[in-house]
Amino acid sequence: MGNKVTINEIISTPLKRISVLGGDVFHAMKKTDDGFSGFGEAYFSQVDSGVVKAWKKHLKMTLNLIVPTGRVRFVFMDNDGLFREEVIGENNYVRLTIPPEIWFGFKGDFENTSLVLNIANIEHSPEEVELKDINEIKYNWSTY
Amino acid sequence: MGNKVTINEIISTPLKRISVLGGDVFHAMKKTDDGFSGFGEAYFSQVDSGVVKAWKKHLKMTLNLIVPTGRVRFVFMDNDGLFREEVIGENNYVRLTIPPEIWFGFKGDFENTSLVLNIANIEHSPEEVELKDINEIKYNWSTY
Repeated sequence: MGNKVTINEIISTPLKRISVLGGDVFHAMKKTDDGFSGFGEAYFSQVDSGVVKAWKKHLKMTLNLIVPTGRVRFVFMDNDGLFREEVIGENNYVRLTIPPEIWFGFKGDFENTSLVLNIANIEHSPEEVELKDINEIKYNWSTY
Repeated sequence: MGNKVTINEIISTPLKRISVLGGDVFHAMKKTDDGFSGFGEAYFSQVDSGVVKAWKKHLKMTLNLIVPTGRVRFVFMDNDGLFREEVIGENNYVRLTIPPEIWFGFKGDFENTSLVLNIANIEHSPEEVELKDINEIKYNWSTY
């Protein structure tokens, strides 16, 4: 039968950026928001300019990805081999909710290091993560 | 009688920074961590270099403050008028857990804009926030 999760189940939610003198406030996630399915862990990943980190798939974790600094190109692939690309960051300030069973990779698409926050519904555990080498899933990561 | 929360109840928890080629991973909070008292909302505040944002007191919210980018000087004051200062950021990567009823302010202590993540146990609501003008609580914010 195979797993039925598809790239269409990825949710993109626009987030508020509130202008404040001396430094803005950026919403990330509320427990009453769409896509919230419990809090397990929050952690940051930096991604340097032009660097690709790929590929990873979580078997149990739902990810909520937010990029408060810079810009990141995310590429998702479901078990049907369909791709979806989302470029998010300061200037397209949205949250991406990724269900389990989706392969993903990401690339720093900014002149400096970008920052990704993941608000996950479970704590990170290597036991629920599958990894593939970047070349095991063919994708054109070169900048358009 | 007055409220009995003191600055000694602020918890400072060292966090892991994991070295990864192309961009490090920074822990922020796990649900099993000290200081976790439920998830209500996560949001970012930027603070520009040299800017002071002060003063604010939450009546109900417990804050968990993390600075993944830059460096921020936090100043806390309890209802006894006692101050506590903590400088945190990339190079002193700790989480500060602040109980309700503590006055606080913060200053961007980095050459560029710094970023603060607050993982709060309740959703932000103006009804549980008290504000004071920066001059209403005397503190020497000048850089040492």
